[in-house]
Amino acid sequence: MQPTTNGIVTLTTDFGVQDLFVGVMKGVILGINRVATPVDITHGIPPQDIPAAALVVDAASGCFPPGTVHLVVVDPGVGSERRNIALACRGQYFVAPDNGVLTAVRAADPVVAVSLEEPVFFRRPVSATFHGRDILAPVAAYLSRGTPLASLGPTVTDLAAAELPQPAVSATAIDGQVVMVDHFGNLITNIRRTALEAVGANVEITIGSERIAGLQPSYAQAPPQAVLAAINSFEVLEIAVNQGNASEQLQAGAGTPVRVDISAGG
Amino acid sequence: MQPTTNGIVTLTTDFGVQDLFVGVMKGVILGINRVATPVDITHGIPPQDIPAAALVVDAASGCFPPGTVHLVVVDPGVGSERRNIALACRGQYFVAPDNGVLTAVRAADPVVAVSLEEPVFFRRPVSATFHGRDILAPVAAYLSRGTPLASLGPTVTDLAAAELPQPAVSATAIDGQVVMVDHFGNLITNIRRTALEAVGANVEITIGSERIAGLQPSYAQAPPQAVLAAINSFEVLEIAVNQGNASEQLQAGAGTPVRVDISAGG
Amino acid sequence: MQPTTNGIVTLTTDFGVQDLFVGVMKGVILGINRVATPVDITHGIPPQDIPAAALVVDAASGCFPPGTVHLVVVDPGVGSERRNIALACRGQYFVAPDNGVLTAVRAADPVVAVSLEEPVFFRRPVSATFHGRDILAPVAAYLSRGTPLASLGPTVTDLAAAELPQPAVSATAIDGQVVMVDHFGNLITNIRRTALEAVGANVEITIGSERIAGLQPSYAQAPPQAVLAAINSFEVLEIAVNQGNASEQLQAGAGTPVRVDISAGG
Repeated sequence: MQPTTNGIVTLTTDFGVQDLFVGVMKGVILGINRVATPVDITHGIPPQDIPAAALVVDAASGCFPPGTVHLVVVDPGVGSERRNIALACRGQYFVAPDNGVLTAVRAADPVVAVSLEEPVFFRRPVSATFHGRDILAPVAAYLSRGTPLASLGPTVTDLAAAELPQPAVSATAIDGQVVMVDHFGNLITNIRRTALEAVGANVEITIGSERIAGLQPSYAQAPPQAVLAAINSFEVLEIAVNQGNASEQLQAGAGTPVRVDISAGG
Repeated sequence: MQPTTNGIVTLTTDFGVQDLFVGVMKGVILGINRVATPVDITHGIPPQDIPAAALVVDAASGCFPPGTVHLVVVDPGVGSERRNIALACRGQYFVAPDNGVLTAVRAADPVVAVSLEEPVFFRRPVSATFHGRDILAPVAAYLSRGTPLASLGPTVTDLAAAELPQPAVSATAIDGQVVMVDHFGNLITNIRRTALEAVGANVEITIGSERIAGLQPSYAQAPPQAVLAAINSFEVLEIAVNQGNASEQLQAGAGTPVRVDISAGG
Repeated sequence: MQPTTNGIVTLTTDFGVQDLFVGVMKGVILGINRVATPVDITHGIPPQDIPAAALVVDAASGCFPPGTVHLVVVDPGVGSERRNIALACRGQYFVAPDNGVLTAVRAADPVVAVSLEEPVFFRRPVSATFHGRDILAPVAAYLSRGTPLASLGPTVTDLAAAELPQPAVSATAIDGQVVMVDHFGNLITNIRRTALEAVGANVEITIGSERIAGLQPSYAQAPPQAVLAAINSFEVLEIAVNQGNASEQLQAGAGTPVRVDISAGG
């Protein structure tokens, strides 16, 4: 059974906000489904950064109600042989190029996927450089107004996957890394709450030359300008500076190693 | 009597637009009130700058219809003991951490305020680092669909206040300052039209080494690239350069002193 | 006959997204027409750049359904004698200062234009520095809910025009220029598909010291980091670098000459 849609269509792209690209996709969506509600997740994915988009869409979609349609356009291969796809997963829909941007979304949940091959649901003529406007946005709009997934094209199972860095877990340590830096300079890692809870003991976190003893419930429990570690609101380990910028203070960014040492106590 | 809501929920934050934070708050709002209309005021408040947020929310809310709900998330103390609050004021609603961001809004108007203490209106589990998503956005959404203010928690009166710089007024001069620089480089001061009209005479404005004789009705009355002073569209004194950037040209910004000298004529 | 409106109101400005200006225009629009759907095209027009706004509005409006109202606020002459206008053109509406920002929109299509002179459709009092909020946004909102164009003011025909750079076409070459650089660094020219098709032969494109043989259907047909030329999704010649940044790689930007040489073959 495919989820009933609610008319919300989110947009996640690497388009930035200087150009007309995002606006025209919304024009196409509203032209097909006037009562759709477009919602920007972000247009600040670094250009062509498929893993970053994969993580953002995974985290953001968890905060939207069932039946939401998520449109993801990070598409370095536009105009090549790569497919465009739509998925039903977790009670929501995802529409994207088949280049790995949906890797995290479908990691732990069953998926029904189709390859978008029915031009009746496209904007014509289809340009070779902007499938976001001409294929993905129209399909998202049709889904949002109730078009069945199965009518969009044949079922596919061999979906492209992005390499998302996974932490290495041993009996005494977890070796992960920073995967994203947010607007405040907080360092978001790939170490999940569940991995930390599994080790169930006191932890010490090392990033560069900084050693952080234990986790804080929130930023405000550390003194101003002090480095701290916390499980953030998306259930992953984050390294922050209370009322400061951890990325600048620690000279750290995406890819910086983060080690969690597990002590025998607990 | 509490104002009847109109479904509009504005958002003012220091989140920037690179991350997913704003998008997920909208997801939470629309999940609770599908017919709400989220409207961004700005997500460009400087990180943790409570006075800047206070001024922006005050100015912006005056342009929205009665019954609008204004959600303000500038929250350096998230996860500490500071309360979250909701106010009815000026026929509108305001939802924010109780850290002074609503100081300007409630300066001249009667307020009914409650402390947000009813978890039934929260997103669960409540994270310790993102009350914007888990407490403030849900409460704003419930208000926007008609939930009574009184049901959200107990009435409170001892609200936190931010220090907003006030001009010093004497018989011969007003000493104020720049409180904000806009995208065009215009210098927005804390000197209100009413303060200028009260002195009712010719004025000379001094900022740095620049002296400006009198006020212009608008930018276009000054020659291109000339410095001018005007009462702006939010009823405060602004120093601008016609078709130029006053902040760069005068090397001025937030905190720069601005003096208005009042001559005997008129 | 004037087009029937659909409630969509687009916004194109040079306001940036740091300030409250865009948000308050939406507040004014929704206060007049609660069921309007504001859609941002961009607020990243370079300050006071009328030709850039003219090109963006022309390109974007083509992706919106009939009956959309397009609000354009790039307005260096605010408060001077320049008029504010509303147009019906191409089955859509456009509301803007009469300073040339609608030059491209009305270039090839019949237009009905009025001068905005009926204060009953304005926000009062009208400030001298923010007609976007006080005249243009309210008028766009009234149009979006069905107010007839003719009721807004007298018909006018002597509209201001912006100088938009046109390519020089000869039997052997087209001499154009870059008119915009997008977020990816792609160089968008003023040479249209129709001009290229008219010459109907093999082409060689020269920009700076770079010579590009022929057109590619899309970015992915060139090797990564290679310079290529393509007709883009808005039907103009674009110079790009596959998975790279052409503006940086070629040190080119708005105004950079682009020459298309036409060879005898075909």
